[in-house]
Amino acid sequence: MLVNGRDTRSIRLAEPPREAPVPEIIDQTRLPHELRFVLLETLDDAERSIREMWVRGAPLIGVTAAYGMALAARTDPSTSGLESAARRLSDTRPTAVNLEWALSAMVEKLRPLPPADREAVAFEHAAALADTDVAACQAIGLHGSEVLEKLVPSGAPAERLQILTHCNAGWLATVDWGTALAPVYRAHRAGLPLHVWVSETRPRNQGAGLTAWELGEEGIPHTVIPDNASGHLLRTGRVDVVIAGTDRTTSAGDVCNKIGTYLKAVAAHDCGVPFYAAVPGSSIDWKLGEGEAESIPIEERDGSEVSEVRGLAPDGRMTSVRITPAGCRVANFGFDVTPARLVTGLITERGVCVASREGLASLFPDRASGKDARG
Amino acid sequence: MLVNGRDTRSIRLAEPPREAPVPEIIDQTRLPHELRFVLLETLDDAERSIREMWVRGAPLIGVTAAYGMALAARTDPSTSGLESAARRLSDTRPTAVNLEWALSAMVEKLRPLPPADREAVAFEHAAALADTDVAACQAIGLHGSEVLEKLVPSGAPAERLQILTHCNAGWLATVDWGTALAPVYRAHRAGLPLHVWVSETRPRNQGAGLTAWELGEEGIPHTVIPDNASGHLLRTGRVDVVIAGTDRTTSAGDVCNKIGTYLKAVAAHDCGVPFYAAVPGSSIDWKLGEGEAESIPIEERDGSEVSEVRGLAPDGRMTSVRITPAGCRVANFGFDVTPARLVTGLITERGVCVASREGLASLFPDRASGKDARG
Repeated sequence: MLVNGRDTRSIRLAEPPREAPVPEIIDQTRLPHELRFVLLETLDDAERSIREMWVRGAPLIGVTAAYGMALAARTDPSTSGLESAARRLSDTRPTAVNLEWALSAMVEKLRPLPPADREAVAFEHAAALADTDVAACQAIGLHGSEVLEKLVPSGAPAERLQILTHCNAGWLATVDWGTALAPVYRAHRAGLPLHVWVSETRPRNQGAGLTAWELGEEGIPHTVIPDNASGHLLRTGRVDVVIAGTDRTTSAGDVCNKIGTYLKAVAAHDCGVPFYAAVPGSSIDWKLGEGEAESIPIEERDGSEVSEVRGLAPDGRMTSVRITPAGCRVANFGFDVTPARLVTGLITERGVCVASREGLASLFPDRASGKDARG
Repeated sequence: MLVNGRDTRSIRLAEPPREAPVPEIIDQTRLPHELRFVLLETLDDAERSIREMWVRGAPLIGVTAAYGMALAARTDPSTSGLESAARRLSDTRPTAVNLEWALSAMVEKLRPLPPADREAVAFEHAAALADTDVAACQAIGLHGSEVLEKLVPSGAPAERLQILTHCNAGWLATVDWGTALAPVYRAHRAGLPLHVWVSETRPRNQGAGLTAWELGEEGIPHTVIPDNASGHLLRTGRVDVVIAGTDRTTSAGDVCNKIGTYLKAVAAHDCGVPFYAAVPGSSIDWKLGEGEAESIPIEERDGSEVSEVRGLAPDGRMTSVRITPAGCRVANFGFDVTPARLVTGLITERGVCVASREGLASLFPDRASGKDARG
């Protein structure tokens, strides 16, 4: 999507082309205050970029890991080398299922090949995964924008559609377009008047820092709110629809997403406002069925993300300020689970379905398995 | 409650006694990083201390405003002077009903008196309001601790009772003891093993800064969480009870409290966890009945509280860091309304009741009025 008016992807090969291709990412920890591209020249770089959250968002993590495998194949294309690289990359983040998915896809693709061919094929395949992700996000945008258009009150076409989102499920979380924001971008470009309430998303403030920045670059009206304010907006009729992303979706339609998503979903349900999750097929964990969402590992991150808030100080430097008493105990859960019963619908690249085993199986009959999923 | 091991109130007369009494408050904007007492020597000081939120919390605002009236009577004891002072103090914060209540009480008390007597009586009456508040909080602590004791699973007496609270409804929000935290303090002192999940409470982080500090000074185990994490804790069985305060309670039992309270209540309801509000009688707005909570004015504060987070920088100075893109639009609602249907019970100084007109009228028959409130 647009950065300074130019189309940009969150991961790309550095230009001008080098002798050997070098992936390049945006260090998202410096946004919205500084736009800095970083080269990934080694497996170490790729691993660090995921662990330190220079890149984040389930789809982008998957593609970055795929490029990490390609970089690993450049220095050690042996099968044991690739398996070791996959393990290291897999250990960076536990919750997103795309990471496992991308790594398995890479290992399966490369294992049958002679080691000498693996690097070139790995780069090709990583690029193909990136393009597949972009296509999926565009399709989510198409199907989701139809959902948005139907929500516009026919009597009031001049009113902006009020959308509430959480965290960043925009193009920075994917390769381009995003998941939850793809319908917003598409509808906006198609001329639908809309406004986005951006939940800041503590502790890391990806809403305040990334979503607000994305929307601003694209020229979409938006307002940042504290996470606490979403219930008030829902109760007072100021939200027409909630759209969030997902880091892992069970085959029963339960949505594991950024901590705080459940609160928005349960409040939306209480207020009669539709809650949609934007779900790339790659985020669906077909192994997890009814009642099994609780087995998803919920990442617990360093407490300093809660006790210290990072931002731009008056002197222009990135600084962290502590908001808790010295030595105070904090807990930092990365994700929560929103049960399918609170989800109005899942917006996938193959269309929109109800959040249930039957709904998902109807769109993904080739991936769903087991007798319960045939419908 | 305890500060550095010594019993302390949030507002008191400066010691040693002066020729004329001078109220003294804690500048709560500097907590938890610095404990600084500030003298209120004039009406201007009192007004500023409320407006700038050096003091906050509905009960403490009321008592501070009462002392503000006493300070006003010191320089201009005329009736018009008092009425003008009451208007200025009333304009500082729109949502808490205690402020109006305390100011009306002072004006009613002073108006019949000769101006020469007004200052002395005003100081006496402000002190009486403070003592009344302490007594009410102690009684809330008594009734609330019985609620907590009943929640302890009889099979597991060694497990700590897990309490979730929001914002700061502790002694810093009142004169002493607090409202939502009074039951916690009382139960803790009585030997009940408990642990408090402290929601940080963006945008001003009164949970992270004030509640965590209070609990730490009192030696009560606690853990600070981002506001977003409360739903996850509730869903995964890690909370036995939620207790929040209230800034204004309708006669029908709807609770207007710090923004984000509704999200906790609706999630607790969804998870079958009891949600209590600690309600001093002074916070009940008897003029507001069934369905009238939406007419409570919801304070909208400066957006910089959202876009900038204040805390302790590594150099030891209080610094604000910006977390949003430059020029980003933000919204900052101070409060939300939790409908009575989501409230398990109201803990008042006269006992615990269901959140309804009948429940409140049964405890406050002397204040409830109208045919619907007789029950």
